[in-house]
Amino acid sequence: MSLRKILQESGERGFLEIIRKRFGTSVPASPAGIGDDAAVVRAGKGRLLVSADCLIEDHHFRRGEPAYLLGRKSLAVNLSDIAAMGGRPAAFLLTLGIPEDLPSGFLDLFLAGLIGSARQHGVRLVGGDTSASSHGLFISMAILGRAGEGRVLARHGARPGDGIYVSGALGASAAGRLLLDRGWRPRMDRTGRTLAGVTGPRGTRSSRWSRSARHLAAAALLRHLDPRPPTRLGRLLRDKGIASAAIDLSDGFSTDLARLAEASRVGARIMKPALPIHDAARLLGPLLAVDPLDLALNGGEEYALLFTVPPGREHLLATLGRRSGCAGALLVGRVTPRRRGVVLAEASGRAGRLEPAGFDHFRGAGRRRRGR
Amino acid sequence: MSLRKILQESGERGFLEIIRKRFGTSVPASPAGIGDDAAVVRAGKGRLLVSADCLIEDHHFRRGEPAYLLGRKSLAVNLSDIAAMGGRPAAFLLTLGIPEDLPSGFLDLFLAGLIGSARQHGVRLVGGDTSASSHGLFISMAILGRAGEGRVLARHGARPGDGIYVSGALGASAAGRLLLDRGWRPRMDRTGRTLAGVTGPRGTRSSRWSRSARHLAAAALLRHLDPRPPTRLGRLLRDKGIASAAIDLSDGFSTDLARLAEASRVGARIMKPALPIHDAARLLGPLLAVDPLDLALNGGEEYALLFTVPPGREHLLATLGRRSGCAGALLVGRVTPRRRGVVLAEASGRAGRLEPAGFDHFRGAGRRRRGR
Repeated sequence: MSLRKILQESGERGFLEIIRKRFGTSVPASPAGIGDDAAVVRAGKGRLLVSADCLIEDHHFRRGEPAYLLGRKSLAVNLSDIAAMGGRPAAFLLTLGIPEDLPSGFLDLFLAGLIGSARQHGVRLVGGDTSASSHGLFISMAILGRAGEGRVLARHGARPGDGIYVSGALGASAAGRLLLDRGWRPRMDRTGRTLAGVTGPRGTRSSRWSRSARHLAAAALLRHLDPRPPTRLGRLLRDKGIASAAIDLSDGFSTDLARLAEASRVGARIMKPALPIHDAARLLGPLLAVDPLDLALNGGEEYALLFTVPPGREHLLATLGRRSGCAGALLVGRVTPRRRGVVLAEASGRAGRLEPAGFDHFRGAGRRRRGR
Repeated sequence: MSLRKILQESGERGFLEIIRKRFGTSVPASPAGIGDDAAVVRAGKGRLLVSADCLIEDHHFRRGEPAYLLGRKSLAVNLSDIAAMGGRPAAFLLTLGIPEDLPSGFLDLFLAGLIGSARQHGVRLVGGDTSASSHGLFISMAILGRAGEGRVLARHGARPGDGIYVSGALGASAAGRLLLDRGWRPRMDRTGRTLAGVTGPRGTRSSRWSRSARHLAAAALLRHLDPRPPTRLGRLLRDKGIASAAIDLSDGFSTDLARLAEASRVGARIMKPALPIHDAARLLGPLLAVDPLDLALNGGEEYALLFTVPPGREHLLATLGRRSGCAGALLVGRVTPRRRGVVLAEASGRAGRLEPAGFDHFRGAGRRRRGR
């Protein structure tokens, strides 16, 4: 079986795992290497967390989307990786492949959004590469974070009995992506920096989309286009020794939970009634003919944290309060022994296997293309 | 003037400089930041050198070129940046945008070349990102290097009186690029890993291309497709305190010399008869209807080192010998006060300004497209 085939079937994290299996010793295993949200690289007596993420035109975004928000998002997806390891973002490298036909204003707004966000998070642009591209806009970033002394937060620390938490309601980003795919567009203000509203696709019957539905559509688009990385929460969870494991929700709750469980060699029991489904997913789902639960479980690009907390430390979560920058950590289940697998339990107690079915950039591309 | 316009006119290093000027404080100046070959990022009591480089299909390479060598080269261009700062490469992140129609064998050979080269240089793959791409193959890497204690080697340390050296003969890589543009192709052996020969474009009259010309064509292609980064030399120049400044020759001697002179606020007098022109450039230039001197002065992607040495330390160069992994450092000129500018002097003593006219990824793209 060719690498390309494996790639299509196993998705991106799988790809890195395949490289490791195939080439062995020169590629370290988790947690200090491939497969965690960030890798740890020693530097004399210090160490840095490093991670890379890319956004590719027509795959992660389309050119019509607001450039200012794209600049913010391209940094946010990288900040999120450092947050999930409990690090402090320090510096980043920006690599751009720029097509000749990119409108001149696009790059200005993109950079303004990017650098504005970098300032906000205290992270410095220290280098990178730029090149013309005959093939659309390509944005690639590498981020460096400081981890201080002691244990970093990784995926492999969860133990049976730990509580499983998410840092926010789920499904809004996936609803936003779906709206974009169905022709909804954000309407930016004159500056190009602030969302002023949303425009439905031609043919949308206004009767079906109430004012409040439009309001939620705007919220969903914003959640998708301008995610807020959980930088403070990740740092607090580690600095205060609260979490035993963490992962950022980039590829969907079901998929990222499976990864955390696999890395920790544990099972998980998720309580379906406890899953926080975002209003946008809950109310727009029916209008978009998708199950809100599917958006919450399998929608990607949340950039919230999924983390586990040992029972003796769960009370400490209350001490985080508003300092964490998140509305509150929500208990959604409990870590179980590995043999129990990862399951989703109804209120009745009946439980079924929770399959990882989250967004994958390879399978996602195929699905999206077929859908249009 | 839009950023896009500025970009076209100023090239990639200029672009990063523009970001710095425009957004100010969040972007540090050289030598610890943008504009040098690598940036220095502190990590507790340690520090790391970081740098990023990308290779884009149809811009830096074409799909028909040998995938195994492309894998090696994609790491080499990054290793070269760490070498120019006198660091030890430690780890790298690999980001790939992979088009659906990429032949399955391509990725296998690419990764085999890449990981093989990583092993050879003792540098570990620690993470990255992969995604489908609707827009051709995109390869982006970030590299981390250790710099130990003390001063790193940077562009800004040259002083009037210092000798100017290059670590190898110039122009072969540019000749190789030109051969590819004119339809010459490397012929790999059955394994896809070793160059077996070259194939001329249809219509090449064999009488014009002797056996020795074909031999040089193979050497030029290999220099372009499989550059050897000066990792050991860079480290020795710094560890032994020999060089006062260094830059890697990625965009052409004239352009990279201008950058070193600008960063150091000095001039330079290059002695034309002393410039080492590679046999491939010297002998194939006439066959390709280009001036060998132009290839040597303005050809890019040499991945050799251009460095300066104070007069009192020039004798130390002899002590490097074969340990440096380079054939020998060649004296090509001397640093002068800034007011004298950067000049090219004939044997007669007559000197003219040496304009930076090296390969630039933006202007280069335009030139190449017009040429075809």
